[in-house]
Amino acid sequence: MNAFIDLSSDTCTRPGEAMRAAMARAEVGDESKHRDPTVTHLCERVADLLGQEAALFLPSGTMCNNIAAMVHCSPGSEVIAAEASHVETSESGALSVFAGARLRTIRTDAGVFTPAQVRDLMRSAKGTRAPRVSAIFAEQTHNRSGGSVWPAERIASLAAFAREHDIAFHIDGARIMNAAVALGCDASDFGRHTDSVWMSFTKGLGCPVGSVLAGSTGFIDAAWEWKHRFGGGMRQAGMLAAGCLHALDHNIDRLAEDHENAALLASRIARIDGLRLTQSAFETNMVFFELLDEAADTITLARKLESEGIRIGVESPRLLRAVTHMDVTARDIETAADALACLVTA
Amino acid sequence: MNAFIDLSSDTCTRPGEAMRAAMARAEVGDESKHRDPTVTHLCERVADLLGQEAALFLPSGTMCNNIAAMVHCSPGSEVIAAEASHVETSESGALSVFAGARLRTIRTDAGVFTPAQVRDLMRSAKGTRAPRVSAIFAEQTHNRSGGSVWPAERIASLAAFAREHDIAFHIDGARIMNAAVALGCDASDFGRHTDSVWMSFTKGLGCPVGSVLAGSTGFIDAAWEWKHRFGGGMRQAGMLAAGCLHALDHNIDRLAEDHENAALLASRIARIDGLRLTQSAFETNMVFFELLDEAADTITLARKLESEGIRIGVESPRLLRAVTHMDVTARDIETAADALACLVTA
Amino acid sequence: MNAFIDLSSDTCTRPGEAMRAAMARAEVGDESKHRDPTVTHLCERVADLLGQEAALFLPSGTMCNNIAAMVHCSPGSEVIAAEASHVETSESGALSVFAGARLRTIRTDAGVFTPAQVRDLMRSAKGTRAPRVSAIFAEQTHNRSGGSVWPAERIASLAAFAREHDIAFHIDGARIMNAAVALGCDASDFGRHTDSVWMSFTKGLGCPVGSVLAGSTGFIDAAWEWKHRFGGGMRQAGMLAAGCLHALDHNIDRLAEDHENAALLASRIARIDGLRLTQSAFETNMVFFELLDEAADTITLARKLESEGIRIGVESPRLLRAVTHMDVTARDIETAADALACLVTA
Amino acid sequence: MNAFIDLSSDTCTRPGEAMRAAMARAEVGDESKHRDPTVTHLCERVADLLGQEAALFLPSGTMCNNIAAMVHCSPGSEVIAAEASHVETSESGALSVFAGARLRTIRTDAGVFTPAQVRDLMRSAKGTRAPRVSAIFAEQTHNRSGGSVWPAERIASLAAFAREHDIAFHIDGARIMNAAVALGCDASDFGRHTDSVWMSFTKGLGCPVGSVLAGSTGFIDAAWEWKHRFGGGMRQAGMLAAGCLHALDHNIDRLAEDHENAALLASRIARIDGLRLTQSAFETNMVFFELLDEAADTITLARKLESEGIRIGVESPRLLRAVTHMDVTARDIETAADALACLVTA
Repeated sequence: MNAFIDLSSDTCTRPGEAMRAAMARAEVGDESKHRDPTVTHLCERVADLLGQEAALFLPSGTMCNNIAAMVHCSPGSEVIAAEASHVETSESGALSVFAGARLRTIRTDAGVFTPAQVRDLMRSAKGTRAPRVSAIFAEQTHNRSGGSVWPAERIASLAAFAREHDIAFHIDGARIMNAAVALGCDASDFGRHTDSVWMSFTKGLGCPVGSVLAGSTGFIDAAWEWKHRFGGGMRQAGMLAAGCLHALDHNIDRLAEDHENAALLASRIARIDGLRLTQSAFETNMVFFELLDEAADTITLARKLESEGIRIGVESPRLLRAVTHMDVTARDIETAADALACLVTA
Repeated sequence: MNAFIDLSSDTCTRPGEAMRAAMARAEVGDESKHRDPTVTHLCERVADLLGQEAALFLPSGTMCNNIAAMVHCSPGSEVIAAEASHVETSESGALSVFAGARLRTIRTDAGVFTPAQVRDLMRSAKGTRAPRVSAIFAEQTHNRSGGSVWPAERIASLAAFAREHDIAFHIDGARIMNAAVALGCDASDFGRHTDSVWMSFTKGLGCPVGSVLAGSTGFIDAAWEWKHRFGGGMRQAGMLAAGCLHALDHNIDRLAEDHENAALLASRIARIDGLRLTQSAFETNMVFFELLDEAADTITLARKLESEGIRIGVESPRLLRAVTHMDVTARDIETAADALACLVTA
Repeated sequence: MNAFIDLSSDTCTRPGEAMRAAMARAEVGDESKHRDPTVTHLCERVADLLGQEAALFLPSGTMCNNIAAMVHCSPGSEVIAAEASHVETSESGALSVFAGARLRTIRTDAGVFTPAQVRDLMRSAKGTRAPRVSAIFAEQTHNRSGGSVWPAERIASLAAFAREHDIAFHIDGARIMNAAVALGCDASDFGRHTDSVWMSFTKGLGCPVGSVLAGSTGFIDAAWEWKHRFGGGMRQAGMLAAGCLHALDHNIDRLAEDHENAALLASRIARIDGLRLTQSAFETNMVFFELLDEAADTITLARKLESEGIRIGVESPRLLRAVTHMDVTARDIETAADALACLVTA
Repeated sequence: MNAFIDLSSDTCTRPGEAMRAAMARAEVGDESKHRDPTVTHLCERVADLLGQEAALFLPSGTMCNNIAAMVHCSPGSEVIAAEASHVETSESGALSVFAGARLRTIRTDAGVFTPAQVRDLMRSAKGTRAPRVSAIFAEQTHNRSGGSVWPAERIASLAAFAREHDIAFHIDGARIMNAAVALGCDASDFGRHTDSVWMSFTKGLGCPVGSVLAGSTGFIDAAWEWKHRFGGGMRQAGMLAAGCLHALDHNIDRLAEDHENAALLASRIARIDGLRLTQSAFETNMVFFELLDEAADTITLARKLESEGIRIGVESPRLLRAVTHMDVTARDIETAADALACLVTA
């Protein structure tokens, strides 16, 4: 079993007994031929949840972003996102490789930007040689800004701006349910404004595999072609989808606990000399903090923590990230904070 | 449940109780960070089975072919395969889209071709404008030729030719275990000659999702980059890998039954006036046959069969395909043959 | 100066005094900003000549084919052409690299194929995984078939078929004026049926640099974007265009002489024991022939000819190509034929 | 002839009589077969001039950048350049389309950046998902910063940093001769530090068409493959190369006049109320300035100037650019400055 208190990421959550049982009894068929009833059911439910017409099941969030880029972006165009978005740092440059598009990023405080900031990046199109902006990618929540949340009104105004300028608006909703829980709103309050939006089931929702990409019927039709081409077509994927359905029923409201645990951890770290929180707010399940002692380094610190059964994320030689999730309790948070305090002030 | 006798494809096999139970109790971790012990175990076992150093787990066979192409093929080069290979007919042109390579096909009797046939397609390289051959893709078994088998010696000689000419040799092993069972040899007798080879777990082996791509350590390192980029990185994929391990233990030898059932079906079809078998041999689990009555058509026939609870594959207005697998018994074959006879001679 | 009788290709033609003088006095401007009056004039004239609305000036025929592919072909689609077309053998696989499309070729007698042959290659589209045909490329004249000519009716019927099936129809008109002269018709009799068509000025027309791609206004607008992106935008290209305009006025009718010289050469070769003509007809300016003596080889023969001041094309260890053009006279043909006879029968 | 005083760009220079005469008498051959002696001579001379082993002739600078990217950049990697470089603003996003790479830009004062600024953009490579930097593109002179110059030592230190980190270093030398003249050094003082470098002949050097890309022998071999693939292979391009050779002999030293004229124009504009120079230095042949009157706009102003026979570049609703070159005299500058003063203060 797992002795670790693993704060390195919410991707490390493991399916519990009830989810495993739900998966084991799933009714299945050939998903790539639209014949898996559990996948079909999941897609309908997620489309509804995200305020869209249709959806499709995919093995990862990176593939969701890839497919949205293929459908929305013409070769040579530009995609706007916040600096340090997942599409920038963690997808192997896929956007340029596959869509032939260029990512341009906006420096933000908390991953959230405005129509005015997008407008500043748009070029007065001079003939055919200046790239045009074809899409905006918003990451909900914005991971590298500390799991910060796009308010629904911000999304609505950015989407309106995008529509007006014939720019596609896409949400990378890896943690969109954390945002909905944090704001006490519906995920469709974000999703219905978009041309495409996806949610991941493998972060706080605790499923082993799966993301669902939603959009208009026309978008999803086009997306199927790219799903097959990328190699995202699966067979009896209902086994996976059953876990996702279980998560929709049982694992959403409980994200509030993860948010409380993150706030708890932040309050504990705030009191440790030698550590400095780098976020001003703790809206969801992430805590980023710096090591102040210049003689120390995060890799060594993380290694010492690991030897005490605690895993944490190393972002840079000075920056650390802790992520709360269903496999971490408030008591685990106290244990981790005590260990941190002990090691840093030693 | 499933009332159907589904001969449309062996991709429609559904996991049985024992496999589901194995999956439900899988030990898991974050696969995309190399931390899922069940995936790791599966990869080691498949690498060994296929006579290679290393392996990686992927959501589909199409992604295996895509990744092999990215690693082996330079832009503008040519890939040689048998006519009507899966990479030609059923992967949305992914080879050209992603690798910028061109597929050239060889007309074959049974999906198997020779070094001499490859040599005929190679151009005397005149400067920098004539494309060169960068890879050979062999499909084991060759689906559209009726599940025909590449003998190990044929593979060995083609691989030797490829090596001599600095051409990568890749096996699309969607049904490589059917070939091994049919010949009574080891899959490594095919795999060890290659630069890359994969096997699917979702055909005759009966798993819901998963293919494993194997090659040298260097190849697999390069493959990981493309796995992430395509969006093939998953999380607790050990749930899926546990099913694959179960299949390796329990579902390989039984492929012989599928082959017997295919032979049985072929012998029954041979006796039906109005149908004509288009294969000379029935080596594995496929039976292709034509409808002779020009006034009839396969779509109508398939629809009538479906109303009797039998599903069959329509390849063209005249051609049909029946595939045997673990969810079809000898008795089902008799039932299907009777229904066919009845409908065709009516 | 040039002592050689150069039959290796009509691309080796050199601009004569009158053409050089026309180039030297060209009125020019910035072509990439649509401000070069000579380029503009040339484009209007070629659009008219080829029966199209608009045209654009490019540095090469390969770029014409590349741009047509970018505009006509969706990623993963298939392009049909005759076997051994220039796009297959001599463009570095550019079609797959840039357009992500796959070239499929038709075996022909003389580079000319029929709607029925295209239909045979079209797949009954099964879902989203079978590639569709997006374009047909006809090469006028078909170089590797011996400069053979597509009759206007053949082009018309193929274009009608293409239109009916939503397939773009493109003519690689590297030697389209040779075809028009050979048939005594207008180039627009071919060009007006197409979605795009280009002509080269650097083969029989004798110009140093330049091809012009023509199509509808919408096509040319889209083509401009790709011209810039590929790096085909030039500046005072009127210097080159002036040569092209000179060629339109002076070098078209005289192609008939080249055709007579090719026929003369063929008739002389027919009488040489040890050589065998591989074409049944000599419609334009090409003569392909084989070396029969198995102990000899074409490279050695070509080298001996070169030492006698005669250059010829080596296609393979057995196949040779001679191309007639404005820098070769009937007397040169006799000289070359005598040398060939002498060397082969020695 | 040309009544205009055209300050819109130095790309509008037209070949004079002597250059035209040199072009008209060029000795030529088939450039794409390496048989054009004048092109060969030009390439050797430019390789030497830029401190490299070899070079190749291309129809445009955009194609030079494209080819360098294809050779230097792996798919998914990042290329660093100064903000508003030509590769960013004016090449239709070609870098992402063809090389699958992403351009990241550095905000600079004058187009010049440091190793430290590059280091800030490099990611601590975490596994296979964080893009790595594969190339640095320096633009000499940097157009949008006002034709500002990279000092040779800056280039040397950046190149050393690049080499140390296995990053290719490329100079877009569209106006590299302006930089050499401005600094009174050799172009090889910049070029010899690079992995690739090109110079344009169509800006201040006054030729109609042509850029030359230089690098190591290995680089140029690889570049030839892409030259053919993009469609940059030409035939009797010696006609163009002869103009370039003429420019090397006659048009380099005179760039100093253009620089004086730019300084003259700047000094005149400095005295016009209502205009504001946006550069602190006028090193070469560019003058950028703003229109201060918020009620006025640059498009209207440019239109009025054009009606007085003066052409100027409109960069944005407030920003203008004037470029000096061989077709503009000091007297023309006075005329233009007077007209500007008159219109702005009217």
